Amino acid sequence: MSPDGKSDMSLVVMKFGGSSVADAEKIKACARRAIASRQQGHQVVMVVSAMGDATDELVELAHQIMPSPPKREMDQLLATGEQVTVSVMAMALEALGQPAISFTAGQIGMVTDDVHTKARLKRIDQARIKRELDAGRVVVVAGFQGVTEDGAVTTLGRGGSNVTLVAVAASLGADVCENYTDVDGIYTADPRIVPTARKVDRMTYDEMLELSSLGANVLHNRAVEFAKKYNVPIHVRSSLNNNEGTMIVAETQDMEHIVVSGAALKDKLARVTLSKVPDKPGTAARIFHTLAAGNIVVDDIIQTTAEDKTATVSFTVELSELGDARKVVESLCCDLGCQSTFEDNLAKVSVVGVGMRVHTGVAEKMFSALAAAGINIQNITTSEIKISVLINREQGKDALRLVHDAFELGKPPRKAK
Amino acid sequence: MSPDGKSDMSLVVMKFGGSSVADAEKIKACARRAIASRQQGHQVVMVVSAMGDATDELVELAHQIMPSPPKREMDQLLATGEQVTVSVMAMALEALGQPAISFTAGQIGMVTDDVHTKARLKRIDQARIKRELDAGRVVVVAGFQGVTEDGAVTTLGRGGSNVTLVAVAASLGADVCENYTDVDGIYTADPRIVPTARKVDRMTYDEMLELSSLGANVLHNRAVEFAKKYNVPIHVRSSLNNNEGTMIVAETQDMEHIVVSGAALKDKLARVTLSKVPDKPGTAARIFHTLAAGNIVVDDIIQTTAEDKTATVSFTVELSELGDARKVVESLCCDLGCQSTFEDNLAKVSVVGVGMRVHTGVAEKMFSALAAAGINIQNITTSEIKISVLINREQGKDALRLVHDAFELGKPPRKAK
Repeated sequence: MSPDGKSDMSLVVMKFGGSSVADAEKIKACARRAIASRQQGHQVVMVVSAMGDATDELVELAHQIMPSPPKREMDQLLATGEQVTVSVMAMALEALGQPAISFTAGQIGMVTDDVHTKARLKRIDQARIKRELDAGRVVVVAGFQGVTEDGAVTTLGRGGSNVTLVAVAASLGADVCENYTDVDGIYTADPRIVPTARKVDRMTYDEMLELSSLGANVLHNRAVEFAKKYNVPIHVRSSLNNNEGTMIVAETQDMEHIVVSGAALKDKLARVTLSKVPDKPGTAARIFHTLAAGNIVVDDIIQTTAEDKTATVSFTVELSELGDARKVVESLCCDLGCQSTFEDNLAKVSVVGVGMRVHTGVAEKMFSALAAAGINIQNITTSEIKISVLINREQGKDALRLVHDAFELGKPPRKAK
Repeated sequence: MSPDGKSDMSLVVMKFGGSSVADAEKIKACARRAIASRQQGHQVVMVVSAMGDATDELVELAHQIMPSPPKREMDQLLATGEQVTVSVMAMALEALGQPAISFTAGQIGMVTDDVHTKARLKRIDQARIKRELDAGRVVVVAGFQGVTEDGAVTTLGRGGSNVTLVAVAASLGADVCENYTDVDGIYTADPRIVPTARKVDRMTYDEMLELSSLGANVLHNRAVEFAKKYNVPIHVRSSLNNNEGTMIVAETQDMEHIVVSGAALKDKLARVTLSKVPDKPGTAARIFHTLAAGNIVVDDIIQTTAEDKTATVSFTVELSELGDARKVVESLCCDLGCQSTFEDNLAKVSVVGVGMRVHTGVAEKMFSALAAAGINIQNITTSEIKISVLINREQGKDALRLVHDAFELGKPPRKAK
């Protein structure tokens, strides 16, 4: 039986990340899993990443030549990592008696735009894949890569193999796509911090998108956005066992009964505050344009206006980016005549759930739990399905546990009041 | 000035083997050489092999999966080796300020038949390469690989990168193609054995073909045959210095003045003799068919017929193949009712030269030199431009030096008598 209850599933697309294909033995284990799925009567497409540290080693080789290689050549280089895995995976399947064929992106017309190192997929020649599936073969597709109209190799950026997984599944109309990782699924919180964290059976695309942004590293946002767009359910599960993992699916009405699906901690945050900023149009745009030009990724932004017609602009960044951000902001403040302060000891705790849209009292419950423990909230940001609070880093893990308990996330979900 | 005296050469195709591109520093050195050629006003195409031991490592990875992987997948795997080199080489050129672009076989339509692991080239899309050359770029082409009409990756077999070199040069009408290796060129004999050996300035395709078969490892026969077919001169030279190497060219009349161009020693030979073989049609065919089916590569064959209507069939094999050959032959002799003997201590000394066609006394001079030193000749085989003798292995190196001296190969060539 498949996770969504169908027993006559005809096409499974399964993706294995770098750690799942790190050596010959692990590759054979993946092949056995695909064969097991074949034996249940499914057609199988495998999407694979580069073996273990292969990509890092290729990057290191390029950097021995120059610090910023031309992106076209970088893509041509990095794509070899997945090409190695697909051919070896096809060999492993054949060695076990399962006919198989490997494909690079070029060989199945996985056409992208020409934005090297972060290309966007345009189309896939699914006819070629279908022909091989119908001939009884397992098809092994190189993740992460694409090819331009002109035949140049591209790569899809971070999380690119998951984008390939979803794109292949969508174009073939797969019944489910399975994302094999080294975790059992998506948890209500990081089990290393919250021992009572529980694996979630189902979660919506939007919840997954929020949790990814908040520090859950299982699925990259671009893949989830793609899955949402084409309504492809993703089964996040472990390559080490046969347990059911977490299904990432489109929202259905019954899911609103679950107010909060998960909680997340983003540790190692810093906050930059510009005060006495002239409150005139274009100033904020100039600030964030300058930060973007300096390749600084800004997390949350809060702006308030004081009575003296000046504004205070705060934003958070990863602690590792604080040094770069400080240089840019201090130079900006010289030009704008404003003041800057920098805090390096912050963390963000968030709760996420589609049920927030229809249920009240979520924020109150979260703030009360933190207040009762004497944890001071320094900033609040919200979306339709998320509440985040900025607190001191030392209190981050305690706060995550408190919030997780307050919403009883460790218990199986039940209908909300 | 180029080796053949032209100073307005417009297109150079240069090939660098695995040892010349084994690490980032060596790759940069190759890039500097290409740039130097650009600065002399030439357009430059580079053909490169996989870095150092990369191909061996990929083979080892495949063998961790299975001993005889499907050939299509093996080609898909091995082709990544050259793809890594082309992209890194293009980076190295760009890092030095030289615009460059890398191409896999698929990207320049280097179409082959579909005989995986030893495919034959059918055509090249030279328009694509020319467009990039005319735009001022150095074009870096992956050696050893091709692509079928259907888009599958193929490889060209042993010496395949040299086939790519010659094919690219032929299709673009290059003025010369340069084969960079770790030796200075082709020598009159192996300098490690014959200290007086001299680098040959010019040699014909046919002489090179004979010498390759006789143990000179610089250029594989298929590349030389290709060069001969399309009349592409090959300049064999060192990647470690700027010395002129050896030009492999079509035969011209003046080359007949050189009676012997080189001498070679093939060490570690064994001889298998089948005696009392029934002398009827098809027996020899059966013997050599059985050997071929056992993947045993036979060197020279000699058959003599005795008065009693039985034949004696002798052939030489590499010593490393003697064990396999013995098994096959002993089983054959059971069936045919003949006797077999095996000798494992032989070597072959040969002299090669197009001048033999028009000059007499070459064989006599060779045999006399060996006889004077008490070296017994056990077999003689000849072609139009080659004489080979089979002798005891212990006498092989001495025999090579004697023959080299007898033909005065250490001295610059002069008109024959």
